[in-house]
Amino acid sequence: MPTLYNRIQGRSLERLAALSDGIFAVAMTLLVLDMHLPTAAQAHSEGELLSALASLGPQWITYGMSFLTLGIFWAGQQTQLSHIAEGTRDLAWIHLGFLFAVTLVPLSTRLLAEFITYRVAVGIYWLNILVLGAMLYWGWMHAARAGLIKDDTPREVQLSICRRILIAQLLYAAGAALCFVRTWLSIAVIVLVQLNYAVAPRLGRGRKSA
Amino acid sequence: MPTLYNRIQGRSLERLAALSDGIFAVAMTLLVLDMHLPTAAQAHSEGELLSALASLGPQWITYGMSFLTLGIFWAGQQTQLSHIAEGTRDLAWIHLGFLFAVTLVPLSTRLLAEFITYRVAVGIYWLNILVLGAMLYWGWMHAARAGLIKDDTPREVQLSICRRILIAQLLYAAGAALCFVRTWLSIAVIVLVQLNYAVAPRLGRGRKSA
Amino acid sequence: MPTLYNRIQGRSLERLAALSDGIFAVAMTLLVLDMHLPTAAQAHSEGELLSALASLGPQWITYGMSFLTLGIFWAGQQTQLSHIAEGTRDLAWIHLGFLFAVTLVPLSTRLLAEFITYRVAVGIYWLNILVLGAMLYWGWMHAARAGLIKDDTPREVQLSICRRILIAQLLYAAGAALCFVRTWLSIAVIVLVQLNYAVAPRLGRGRKSA
Amino acid sequence: MPTLYNRIQGRSLERLAALSDGIFAVAMTLLVLDMHLPTAAQAHSEGELLSALASLGPQWITYGMSFLTLGIFWAGQQTQLSHIAEGTRDLAWIHLGFLFAVTLVPLSTRLLAEFITYRVAVGIYWLNILVLGAMLYWGWMHAARAGLIKDDTPREVQLSICRRILIAQLLYAAGAALCFVRTWLSIAVIVLVQLNYAVAPRLGRGRKSA
Repeated sequence: MPTLYNRIQGRSLERLAALSDGIFAVAMTLLVLDMHLPTAAQAHSEGELLSALASLGPQWITYGMSFLTLGIFWAGQQTQLSHIAEGTRDLAWIHLGFLFAVTLVPLSTRLLAEFITYRVAVGIYWLNILVLGAMLYWGWMHAARAGLIKDDTPREVQLSICRRILIAQLLYAAGAALCFVRTWLSIAVIVLVQLNYAVAPRLGRGRKSA
Repeated sequence: MPTLYNRIQGRSLERLAALSDGIFAVAMTLLVLDMHLPTAAQAHSEGELLSALASLGPQWITYGMSFLTLGIFWAGQQTQLSHIAEGTRDLAWIHLGFLFAVTLVPLSTRLLAEFITYRVAVGIYWLNILVLGAMLYWGWMHAARAGLIKDDTPREVQLSICRRILIAQLLYAAGAALCFVRTWLSIAVIVLVQLNYAVAPRLGRGRKSA
Repeated sequence: MPTLYNRIQGRSLERLAALSDGIFAVAMTLLVLDMHLPTAAQAHSEGELLSALASLGPQWITYGMSFLTLGIFWAGQQTQLSHIAEGTRDLAWIHLGFLFAVTLVPLSTRLLAEFITYRVAVGIYWLNILVLGAMLYWGWMHAARAGLIKDDTPREVQLSICRRILIAQLLYAAGAALCFVRTWLSIAVIVLVQLNYAVAPRLGRGRKSA
Repeated sequence: MPTLYNRIQGRSLERLAALSDGIFAVAMTLLVLDMHLPTAAQAHSEGELLSALASLGPQWITYGMSFLTLGIFWAGQQTQLSHIAEGTRDLAWIHLGFLFAVTLVPLSTRLLAEFITYRVAVGIYWLNILVLGAMLYWGWMHAARAGLIKDDTPREVQLSICRRILIAQLLYAAGAALCFVRTWLSIAVIVLVQLNYAVAPRLGRGRKSA
C-alpha cells in the first residue's frame, strides 16, 4: 500500500498531457533546427547553393524520420491517455520515463546524422525507439493492472493498443537488424514502416481489424 | 474502413491544439533568438554599436516576416480547428504534416537571412509557405469530406476558409515570382501581403465579404 | 465592417493563452540558458571556478532582471485576458504583436549583457519594455472600445489596469533616462521598480488602491 | 490590504500550470540537448564511436540526475496546485520564483557536467535543489496561511506535503555534504535519493504513511 504522499502525488492527467505536448513540441522543433545549413562562405552562386542544399539529402531523411518517430509516439501516448480515467503517481513516473526517451530522440538523431554509415549509430537510434515503445507498453499494462482504464473501453481496444506496439516494435527491430547488411537499408525500412503507420488509412482501406 | 486501432487513435482535438501551440511558440521564439548580434569585439563605441545594429536591418525584415508567417498560419489553423467537431487520426496526421512545415520556418528563414540575394533561398522560403497553405487546405477539405465540421458552421464560412487560403497563396506565388526581377522586391511584396492579412480590419472597413 | 473571414478568425482566447504561455515559457528558459559559464579550460581549481563564477555577477543581474520583466508582463497579460469575455482577430493580432516583443526580450537581454556599459544597449532594452507596455495598453483599450470586456468587470478595475501600465512605464522611462548618468544606475532603478511590482503586496500593506 | 490591482492580478491557476508545464518541458528537453556528442572528426570506426560514447558516461549520469530533479519537482508542484482552490498574485510570484530556479537547472547541470570533480559545482547544484525545495515549501505555507487550500484537503495531506519537502531536503543536504569526501559520492547519493522518490511505490509497499 503506497504512502499517503504517494497516493496524492502527481495525479493530474491534464498536467501530464500538457507536459507531454510541451516536450514533444520542443523536441520536434529543435530536431529540425539542429540541421546544418550551408553558410555564405560555402556557396557563392545560385548553383553552388542548390548543390550544397542537395548534398544535405541524407540529413533530411534522418530528421524527417525522427519527426515521424515523434509524431507516431505522440499519437500513441495520446490514444492511451484518452482511455485512462484517472492518474496515479506511478503512471506519471512511467510517462516521465517515456518523456525522457522522447528528449533523447533529437540526440540520437544528431548522432545518426553525423554517423549515418555506422551500425552503432543505427543501433542507438533503434534502442531509443525500443525504449519509447517499451515505456508506452509498460504504461498501458500498468493502467490495466491498476484499474485506471475507463470503464467504457472495450476489451478489444485494450488488446489492439498492445498489439499495435508489439507489431510495430517487431518491424522496427527487423529494420534495425538490416544494419548488418547496410545502414541505409535499415533507415529505409524504418522510414517505410513509419510512413505506413502515418498514412495507414490510405493503404488500409478494406482491411477490417488490426 | 479503417482498422480498429486507427479508429481510436489520435482523436483529441485539445491535444492537437496544445501540440500546435507548443510548436508555434518554440518556432516563434527560436526564430528571433537565431539572429546574430554584434559582439563586444565588433563594436567599441556607442556609435559603432548603433551602426552595427543598423547593419542588421535586412536580417530584421526576414525575421519579422517569418513571425508574421507563423502568426498568420497559427490564426488560420486555429480558425479551422474551432469549426471542427471531432478529431480523427487522419486529421491529426495532416496537421502533423502542417506542423512539420511549421518547424521548417526557422530553418528557411535562417537560409534566407544568410542568402538574401539568392533566388534559390527565396524559392525555398516560398515553398515552405506553399506547403503550409497546402496542408491547411488539405486539412479543411478532409474535414469537410469526412463530416468532421461542426453542424452550425454556415456553408459560406466553409467556402470563405478555402477562398482565403487560395487567394493568399496566389499572392504569395506572385510575390515569389518577382525574385526573378529582384529578391528584395519579392520579400517586400510577401511582407506587404502578410501585413495586409495581419492588419486587414483596419484597411478592410467598408468591404462586406472576402 | 470586417469581412466574413475576419469575423470568424482567431477568436479562441484559450489558444491565445496557450500560445502566450508557450512563448513566455520558452523565452524564460532560453534567457537563462544563454548565460556563459566558465569552461574547464578557464578554471583549474576550486578557487578559480568560484572567482570565474563571481565575475559573472553583472550577467546574473541582467538575466534576473529579464526574468522579472517577463514575469511582470506575463502576469499583466493574464490579468487582462481573465477580464475579457470573447476574442476577435484584432485582439489576437495585437497580442501577437505583444508576443513578438516578448520573443525580443532574450535578444535585448543578450545585447545588454554584452554591452552593459553602453547607453545604446540600455536604450534598446528600455524600448523593448516600452513596446511590451504599449501593446498591452493597446490590447486593453481595444477590448474596451470593442466591448469585449466581461460585463461583471467593475469600471475601477478597468481604470486600474490602465493606470498600472502608465505608472510602470513612467518609472521605467525615468530609470532608462538615468543611463545618461551611468548605465548601471539605470539598470539598478529598473530592477528596483520591477522588484517593487513583484513583491509589492509585502511593501504595499496598508495602502488601499493603486 | 493589497491594492485593487494586486487583488485582481495573476489569479489564474490554469495559466500558472500551463506556464509551469511549458518551462519544465523546455528545461527537460534542452537539458539533454546540451550533451556533447562525438563528431565525425573524433571517431573513425565503429569501435572508436562506441568508446567515445562510453566515455560520455559521467555526463549521462549528470543529465539523467537533472531529469529526475525536474520530474520530482514537477510532480511536487502539481500535487500542491491540485489542492489549491484559487490563485492570488502572491502565490503566482512565489511560483514564478520557483520557475526561475527551474530554468537554472540546465545551467547548474552544465556546470556540474563540466566540473564534475569540483566541490563548488556540486555545491551550486545542491543550492539549486535547495532553492527549488524552499520555494515549493514557501508556496505551500503561503497557501495555507492565506486560506487558498481546498476545503476538502485533509489536514494530514497538508502535513504530508510539508514533511515530504523537509525530509527530501535533509537527504539532499546530507548527500551534498559528502562532496567533502568525494564529489562522485555526493552525486551517487543524490541520484539514489531521487530514484527512491521516483520509484518509491515499488520499494515502499507495506509502509503505511510518510
